[in-house]
Amino acid sequence: MRSQETVLFANEAFYNAFARSDFPAMDALWARDTHVICIHPGWHALTTREQIMESWRQMFEAGTTPVTCRSPEVFITGDVAFVVCYEQLADAVLVATNAFRRHDDAWHMVHHQAGPTRIRPSPVAAADGGKTRIN
Amino acid sequence: MRSQETVLFANEAFYNAFARSDFPAMDALWARDTHVICIHPGWHALTTREQIMESWRQMFEAGTTPVTCRSPEVFITGDVAFVVCYEQLADAVLVATNAFRRHDDAWHMVHHQAGPTRIRPSPVAAADGGKTRIN
Repeated sequence: MRSQETVLFANEAFYNAFARSDFPAMDALWARDTHVICIHPGWHALTTREQIMESWRQMFEAGTTPVTCRSPEVFITGDVAFVVCYEQLADAVLVATNAFRRHDDAWHMVHHQAGPTRIRPSPVAAADGGKTRIN
Repeated sequence: MRSQETVLFANEAFYNAFARSDFPAMDALWARDTHVICIHPGWHALTTREQIMESWRQMFEAGTTPVTCRSPEVFITGDVAFVVCYEQLADAVLVATNAFRRHDDAWHMVHHQAGPTRIRPSPVAAADGGKTRIN
């Protein structure tokens, strides 16, 4: 499988875990062998794995989030892949960056940041199934 | 010079260029040999170098931004460094991620995302001059 497809699958797995409040799946996604960063909308930056997993645990306990990933674009630079996408929520759209680090042919999450955007992805862009660029 | 110090210098150079509306300095900071991503607060994702530099040109023409970088933390994973920091503006604090890619011992910007945060960095954290973690 090509790297960009593997990264898109990892990104999809992240949003599936997010939407289903699936803590074990979320926990399995995040890297254990390097530093990790997570910035939820409006929060301060979480920069330890313990803080990040505790944040997901709290969010999942508060209820499920109807989140859908729209228009993902993959940019691979060396052993790090950036995915830029839009998070469609019930009443808002966020713009997000997810970064993954390659380790033993697997991609694990090392960074997530989502924040508000005034702009919605176009239906055309959303329907393209994801774009990929590799350096 | 250690990698983390070089990354912190590159991050400082970014905020100096930003605060001074110095377009040539900003242009020199961004990578030319790989993909680049920029997400200004509230904007959609800019994913070409041309879009990104045009956005800075427009912002700089609109006037200078009194931006100060607070509490930068560096996380190096392979040839990519993430800097998480807070952007102190005149009337708001944003949380930002800046990513740099190493190429021939120089670090160039490949990613910037800033968004609102409800939380201000503490004076203690702001006064530490930057923290660094390397994997």
